[in-house]
Amino acid sequence: MSIDFRIEATSKQARAGRLSTPHGEIETPVFMPVGTAATVKSVPQDVLEELGVQILLGNTYHLYLRPGIETVRNLGGLHTFMAWPRAILTDSGGFQVFSLNELRKVSEDGVTFRSHLDGSSHFFSPESAMQAQIGLGADIIMAFDECTEYPADRARTQASMEMTLRWAARSKKYFEEHKQEVPWKQYSVPSTQCQEKDEATPETASTGNSVLGTGYSTQSLFGIVQGGMDLALRKESAERTIEIGFPGYAIGGLSVGEPRERTREVIEATLEHLPKDKPRYVMGVGTPEEIADYASLGVDMMDCVLPTRAARHGLLFTSEGKVSIKQARYTNDAGPLDPNCGCRVCRRYSRAYLRHLYASNEVLAQVLNTLHNLSFYLDTMRRVRHSIRLGEESRFLSGLWSQPKP
Amino acid sequence: MSIDFRIEATSKQARAGRLSTPHGEIETPVFMPVGTAATVKSVPQDVLEELGVQILLGNTYHLYLRPGIETVRNLGGLHTFMAWPRAILTDSGGFQVFSLNELRKVSEDGVTFRSHLDGSSHFFSPESAMQAQIGLGADIIMAFDECTEYPADRARTQASMEMTLRWAARSKKYFEEHKQEVPWKQYSVPSTQCQEKDEATPETASTGNSVLGTGYSTQSLFGIVQGGMDLALRKESAERTIEIGFPGYAIGGLSVGEPRERTREVIEATLEHLPKDKPRYVMGVGTPEEIADYASLGVDMMDCVLPTRAARHGLLFTSEGKVSIKQARYTNDAGPLDPNCGCRVCRRYSRAYLRHLYASNEVLAQVLNTLHNLSFYLDTMRRVRHSIRLGEESRFLSGLWSQPKP
Repeated sequence: MSIDFRIEATSKQARAGRLSTPHGEIETPVFMPVGTAATVKSVPQDVLEELGVQILLGNTYHLYLRPGIETVRNLGGLHTFMAWPRAILTDSGGFQVFSLNELRKVSEDGVTFRSHLDGSSHFFSPESAMQAQIGLGADIIMAFDECTEYPADRARTQASMEMTLRWAARSKKYFEEHKQEVPWKQYSVPSTQCQEKDEATPETASTGNSVLGTGYSTQSLFGIVQGGMDLALRKESAERTIEIGFPGYAIGGLSVGEPRERTREVIEATLEHLPKDKPRYVMGVGTPEEIADYASLGVDMMDCVLPTRAARHGLLFTSEGKVSIKQARYTNDAGPLDPNCGCRVCRRYSRAYLRHLYASNEVLAQVLNTLHNLSFYLDTMRRVRHSIRLGEESRFLSGLWSQPKP
Repeated sequence: MSIDFRIEATSKQARAGRLSTPHGEIETPVFMPVGTAATVKSVPQDVLEELGVQILLGNTYHLYLRPGIETVRNLGGLHTFMAWPRAILTDSGGFQVFSLNELRKVSEDGVTFRSHLDGSSHFFSPESAMQAQIGLGADIIMAFDECTEYPADRARTQASMEMTLRWAARSKKYFEEHKQEVPWKQYSVPSTQCQEKDEATPETASTGNSVLGTGYSTQSLFGIVQGGMDLALRKESAERTIEIGFPGYAIGGLSVGEPRERTREVIEATLEHLPKDKPRYVMGVGTPEEIADYASLGVDMMDCVLPTRAARHGLLFTSEGKVSIKQARYTNDAGPLDPNCGCRVCRRYSRAYLRHLYASNEVLAQVLNTLHNLSFYLDTMRRVRHSIRLGEESRFLSGLWSQPKP
């Protein structure tokens, strides 16, 4: 068994649930911080744990180039390599390769691309992308897809979608034949051994963050729905991806330049065609307002570089709106970044200090800004989950930015 | 009263003591991490507290340029500005200005220099350096001195020393006339108020890290001994600085390019002429071996950018010697950085991971490397203090690198 997904509460379209993986449980809807190169930029893993991160994302493309799949595999997989005992999801590399534009060439077989680091030539196919992701050993891995560019006409969108479907079938076939090769398999021990070690609290052994004794011992491969901005193609893509059969489904091909209303419309329309009992993952979104909104539509999982990338540019999300901490108006501001936020940064430092760090190009600016933005995103999702369980799914939407916390 | 220094144990020349300041007690001998621009680069303040940092150093030159003395003063001083409740020492700016080389011009009055940031022209005198340091409000501040260049002939060294002596007198005069202007004075409250707030543990009120209720309510100005590499001039500088009278004495003008044996010789010779009952501070040294060695000579305080700067270049201090983590030999090394170190980094991450972070230019490399190096320095001094108290001052010298911890 690889994962288990239980919906524990619903409120209109929104669902609050629990996703069990080989490396622990995840409360959904969940926001997954992006740890591109086996690090959520500037944040130590113990701080991520403290923030309550239950799952983070790694990028296969980046890890493939550096330090290389074999290095990670030989060290026991990504969990061991980056000393992260909780769940991990890797993307297939498809989106990253898609972003290379000039440097790639797509064929039925796969994608030839040049490394952004040194220009060296590489090739990803559904099979090699699966091989890479098995080597990395994330709990959830993604089918190799083509992210259709925007804008694209119907013929191009359909052709692209068809190829993604063929690639999905190839991804699944390779995965099923090779899933036993995941590097953390070797660390599995019979559950009796776990209980011996942990007699006083046997329930820890079965629900803890280690693969040992969780009862889930293989990775899960999720399918990806494409179809561009065409709702009929999205429907077709969803139905045919479901036919292939996956334990979870992602909506890909968004955040590629389309207007935000269009993103929402595609998500809402596509969700209708996805099974209610499986996790639904929208890739690469969004602002705090958007992730709360998409959760209300019934999305269970989201990831985005926005909180971490914006932090590096001094753009901070707060309960009172966005703050560009570089502005001179904060030079003498003794107040906290967000008076309604209880994170380590807001509890301790002033806007004046954060502004000084940013203006002085200090690394601590990135450390603290990232910590706050992640905290804000995770807190937003915590409130969303709480509201769904209370049956108040509309409250967190209208009140997210205007209401101070109790 | 400003500070109190008590020697609690000695072992040959070495002393273990306790320095009480308005912002808490410091166990000596102490290594003070450098927080140049109101931040120990890349390390959050709560982590510094966890590491056991009891005092850190701020650079007046850098803070004067950015964010500016008035900004810090208006926010209540450096402690409040950087949210650091424990002790702080600021340098006078003299050494930093000295490092500018082409950009400075020295006269009897003071030093005209150009900002390394924007080329703008500025002037530091003993008086303005005191004014700046009073505005920053560190617990311990330093007289404005001229750091004699290396090499320098006797005439030049003597002339430079004489000017430093005149500047020391001017520094003291200005400080005595203005020390009531320290910005944290305004936060003082009568001790009865403290006790009301903290009835259950009244001893906390008198020994805590807050200026409130510590009983020490003004800054302390330390004198600086110069005299280049000339031992007779060092003796004269020490004696005449003592004549002016300060609550603590620093040995400046070292680490300016001289051979390391010469540094040690100058320190040893100068210490002989410094009062035994006052703290003795050697500025800008050294490696872990050196700080342990200088402590054995009777030095109480040291600071150096080495642990933090080396960390940024991937150079790590361990019980098994220096490690250059960028080396390819660590690519697949699953072991901890230092098997004898109990810091957060060594407990959690492998050399392979640290190597990957460094090779990938990840900010977390700097965060973790700095954390380890600081931890190693602080741990070294902890062991030094422990050995002095046990009367085993020679043990930490011979055994520092070869002996695993018990």
